[in-house]
Amino acid sequence: MATLITRTGQSIDRQALESMLRRRMFYTPSFEIYGGVAGLYDYGPPGCSLQANLIETWRKHFVLEEDMLEVDCSVLTPHEVFKTSGHVDKFADWMCKDPVNGEILRADHFVEAVLEARLKGDKEARGIKADAVEEEDPKKKKKKHKSVAQRLDDAVVKEYSEVLAQIDNYDGEALGQLIKKYELKNPTTGAQPSDPMPFNLMFQTKIGPASNAPGYLRPETAQGQFLNFAKLLEFNMQNMPFASASIGKSYRNEISPRAGLLRVREFLMAEIEHFVDPSGGKKHPRFPEVENVELTLLDKHTQLSGSTETRKMTIGQAVKDKVVDNETLGYFIARIHLFFERVGADLTKVRFRQHMANEMAHYACDCWDAELLTSYGWIECVGCADRSAYDLTVHQNKTGAPLVVRQILTEPVVERMWVPEIDRKKFGPHFKKDGRVIAEVIEALDQAQLEKFKKDVDDTGSFTVDVPAIKDGKATVTRDLVNINFQTITKHSREYTPNVIEPSFGIGRILYSLLEHSFWTRGTEGGDEARGVLSFPPSMAPTKVLIVPLSKNDEFSPLARKVGHKLRQLGISSRVDDSGASIGKRYSRNDELGTAFGITIDFQTLKDGSVTLRERDSTRQVRADESRILEAVQSMVNGHKSWADIEAELPKFEGQEVEVQVR
Amino acid sequence: MATLITRTGQSIDRQALESMLRRRMFYTPSFEIYGGVAGLYDYGPPGCSLQANLIETWRKHFVLEEDMLEVDCSVLTPHEVFKTSGHVDKFADWMCKDPVNGEILRADHFVEAVLEARLKGDKEARGIKADAVEEEDPKKKKKKHKSVAQRLDDAVVKEYSEVLAQIDNYDGEALGQLIKKYELKNPTTGAQPSDPMPFNLMFQTKIGPASNAPGYLRPETAQGQFLNFAKLLEFNMQNMPFASASIGKSYRNEISPRAGLLRVREFLMAEIEHFVDPSGGKKHPRFPEVENVELTLLDKHTQLSGSTETRKMTIGQAVKDKVVDNETLGYFIARIHLFFERVGADLTKVRFRQHMANEMAHYACDCWDAELLTSYGWIECVGCADRSAYDLTVHQNKTGAPLVVRQILTEPVVERMWVPEIDRKKFGPHFKKDGRVIAEVIEALDQAQLEKFKKDVDDTGSFTVDVPAIKDGKATVTRDLVNINFQTITKHSREYTPNVIEPSFGIGRILYSLLEHSFWTRGTEGGDEARGVLSFPPSMAPTKVLIVPLSKNDEFSPLARKVGHKLRQLGISSRVDDSGASIGKRYSRNDELGTAFGITIDFQTLKDGSVTLRERDSTRQVRADESRILEAVQSMVNGHKSWADIEAELPKFEGQEVEVQVR
Repeated sequence: MATLITRTGQSIDRQALESMLRRRMFYTPSFEIYGGVAGLYDYGPPGCSLQANLIETWRKHFVLEEDMLEVDCSVLTPHEVFKTSGHVDKFADWMCKDPVNGEILRADHFVEAVLEARLKGDKEARGIKADAVEEEDPKKKKKKHKSVAQRLDDAVVKEYSEVLAQIDNYDGEALGQLIKKYELKNPTTGAQPSDPMPFNLMFQTKIGPASNAPGYLRPETAQGQFLNFAKLLEFNMQNMPFASASIGKSYRNEISPRAGLLRVREFLMAEIEHFVDPSGGKKHPRFPEVENVELTLLDKHTQLSGSTETRKMTIGQAVKDKVVDNETLGYFIARIHLFFERVGADLTKVRFRQHMANEMAHYACDCWDAELLTSYGWIECVGCADRSAYDLTVHQNKTGAPLVVRQILTEPVVERMWVPEIDRKKFGPHFKKDGRVIAEVIEALDQAQLEKFKKDVDDTGSFTVDVPAIKDGKATVTRDLVNINFQTITKHSREYTPNVIEPSFGIGRILYSLLEHSFWTRGTEGGDEARGVLSFPPSMAPTKVLIVPLSKNDEFSPLARKVGHKLRQLGISSRVDDSGASIGKRYSRNDELGTAFGITIDFQTLKDGSVTLRERDSTRQVRADESRILEAVQSMVNGHKSWADIEAELPKFEGQEVEVQVR
Repeated sequence: MATLITRTGQSIDRQALESMLRRRMFYTPSFEIYGGVAGLYDYGPPGCSLQANLIETWRKHFVLEEDMLEVDCSVLTPHEVFKTSGHVDKFADWMCKDPVNGEILRADHFVEAVLEARLKGDKEARGIKADAVEEEDPKKKKKKHKSVAQRLDDAVVKEYSEVLAQIDNYDGEALGQLIKKYELKNPTTGAQPSDPMPFNLMFQTKIGPASNAPGYLRPETAQGQFLNFAKLLEFNMQNMPFASASIGKSYRNEISPRAGLLRVREFLMAEIEHFVDPSGGKKHPRFPEVENVELTLLDKHTQLSGSTETRKMTIGQAVKDKVVDNETLGYFIARIHLFFERVGADLTKVRFRQHMANEMAHYACDCWDAELLTSYGWIECVGCADRSAYDLTVHQNKTGAPLVVRQILTEPVVERMWVPEIDRKKFGPHFKKDGRVIAEVIEALDQAQLEKFKKDVDDTGSFTVDVPAIKDGKATVTRDLVNINFQTITKHSREYTPNVIEPSFGIGRILYSLLEHSFWTRGTEGGDEARGVLSFPPSMAPTKVLIVPLSKNDEFSPLARKVGHKLRQLGISSRVDDSGASIGKRYSRNDELGTAFGITIDFQTLKDGSVTLRERDSTRQVRADESRILEAVQSMVNGHKSWADIEAELPKFEGQEVEVQVR
């Protein structure tokens, strides 16, 4: 049974939250009346609004704060692009097939589930009560396997635990060996599944009518940003460093999606590509602003040693100690932490976990995941990867388009180096239409390659260079076409391929985690069923204000509409609830929706224009003139004031809610 | 050559605008360094921001103003859903193939292009100069065909014109007949293309790993809203009428996309589904608020008579005269008109055109397109369709889920009718797991079906009912399980399937049209090249304020940053341009970006804290304290004040721009 520990210290069955979220239509399985499709969800009105607030906060916190260049790129992407980026060959999970019933299993999840079930059985046999959260699912969202109470050797327990601590570090072959070594069987059939095979996670389609033009739905927004690099640099008037950003849907054909919003096939991402000069240690000018931010870290060495123990550290210290590689990576990690604070995450349930070598995506050279603790275990919500120059380099090599920065040097640099001199008059006619791309490849050769080719020319009179873009894939170049010399060169500019630091946010996962972090229940005095509350910060609440006419009195209605209209003018969303339900019921419904405030219109309002303002979490109220109340709401929604400030400023009010309930 | 007539009355080659938009990165072909893919575009920073402002205004104008229930549904959709909705069978364009070179042509565009080329040739032969806009492309975005000066009979000219006026009204067979009758040939090869074949416009993919589960990318957001109808009604506490809304990407595999942003394969839509009780004439409570809005209308009768002449009319009159069918449809048509006004469309270039019978989508019973005039001709930007009860009915019939409203009647109604009485005790055990869905189907049978089945039971002892959701597809029900009787029933409630009015917005098309409507050029005094300006309303401008330090003086920089910071606090986007370029150059760049205002920091600012404020269109300036200037900007961005108001309030300033240019 999955349990969540609320911020108020309550231990609550996850089902209570999920049934409330369904009832209030935060989200719902897509196509449910057709039986649904695994891994696809629709957001209802409150979920949609929560998502919009999360995106808006993200845009303010990252894009506007740092003048990032936001772009919106195509989801449909031709084969060639993902072939070059490596996704066609490497963007895969390992799957095995059950030989008996044909069931398809994700290999790592399967190994994890069986070993965990065995460990649990061992605990039962030893009479140890398992911890509720740990037991369910330390990280992955796999099918639960039933445990059988059976004691294991101490050495075996240790071995299993060590395997589990680095489960993300195994490739297909290693997973296959684990399956054989530990004789892992699918509990449904008792059979051992097949050897793991790679399954590409991209959705494929065809673009155009007659088309033999295969395309994919992008699995990340990043490539669109890389392909536009040269234009973005131009738009930024050649200034470096800079970041682009993009918010949009991406798609991954998960093998067996489970766990609600946490592992889905269609999801909203918000990604930043920060382009930085790799020379000079990737310093960041605003790093001092964040160096004292304290983080909870779990580095790769700790995990490889078989432990998941975290440590607390300021980001300044972490960069100084080389736990985090450089300032720019560190800066974004700290900014991500501050973002979580701003949107209302429980900071005791946030950690940053470094990827182990084999776990890393094919393009990354270092990566930290920001993880949020939920009843499903620790969930990767943001990946913060250093993609180095990988993407820009492969796209430039493939297309010949210069994805580089040319920096004017303040002082010219004199160097001795190998230089290829192309005899244009002969070169062009010799290679014809391939000439341009071959020349580009030659001009992009590095010093080691040039030195080798110089030797080839001296030995054989020619050298052969790989040119993937032409028909033969390579070109043989004779001495009369290109001459390679060691020369003294005075450089007035330098050309480099920027490195990319990429913070990549899974909006749906953050949203779900925030729902868990915000949820708690309060008992009612009468001992009724506990009532759910979602304690979002006012800026995040799907609806900011519930407007409640005390009763169905005709005079209240126009006043309620007027308050709603004024709030709309201030850009604050509100709803009028003039149903006949009791005030208590109406507030209760809106506590479940996370509505931050309530404004009640009553008989006193008719007399003196005053209204009451109720705060969701404390249920306490103040009373004042409508205009002062609206001002108070605005200042809290903008984050300029807290409820405590407002309570100190305005007279307390006690009454309706209880009165009406008693009536 | 395509010409656009600007709001200032200038006649400008479209290329001038497009090259400016490319240079300023409003949008750019996706994957351009890979050669691009037809019909796919990326938005760069100003385009992305313009799109965000358009969406935000849409959300305020429609969703917030009318308390619509916004949802965000999956793009990936299983086959079954679009099979039921009719899209698998009917969502197609007609294509023909050139037998010589295999070129694929969209049949209607091909017919249109050849006939237009002939008409143009006729005009040339008669010595009539063709009108620039008309000539290019009256409505569709097809390949241009070269005209040959050749005189036609007057009767033939008339016939061609009549065909063109109703080109959208032909189906594949009729288009094939036109091709044969008029001997239309592909100018590239001189060959007559094949008979038109339907080509389904949905992108297909597979969902899941082992999958024989085909799926599609949705071609509209609507279905997700229909499938959630029952939950949305529940969320709205059973109140009718109400509307849902959705903003998201949709996909159509266009046969031959052309014309930039106007015919693309991936596009952002904003759709409203307004659910209304069909009894009572589809009245709308807020219709009086809009009845005096004057519109330019082109109804179906006019088009079928071979004319495209519009008439001006208030929406009140149009509904009264039954030109527009009902108040709800009329209300939304008027609201769309007001939306265009709010986002800065040129209202002299807006018309509403009614669909002809064959042109209508398979689900619609009436439809008006809001069209904007551009250099490509009249462009459908919003479709406002009455989808009647089509979608809810077909989905309910297919799934058995009740997509209906149950209305409590204030006075009970007594009726005699056929009623099926299910013997639950026997029925459940007999049909086992299929029992529930079979019972739902029986309960949803209409009177005619019940009467027929009653006869079957009397004749044979049983009846057989279609139940697509179960394995056999049908169930045989014996007399002992269900008894059908003619009874007197007192109804306290009534059940109905709501009708749907659907305003559906193509955001990319609106965005492009606004770019054309906003563009003009101004000459420079020195007689330089004309400089482009994009006159967006302040609320729509991608960046609201350019902050310009007069020169590279070190004291200006912190002041510029401070102004930027204060604007950010007010939620207003700004950019600092502290490049060394002249003030004139810097403003000129931002006129092209449509930046609404400029704030200049100069030596006077250091002395007294005053700054100047420049308005983009007039280039006039005022000067005042920084705080008053920021207040002025805020009031104009919010739409509370105009530039004329500000000029009346604050002292005029003349100087820098000219001075610096002269220097």
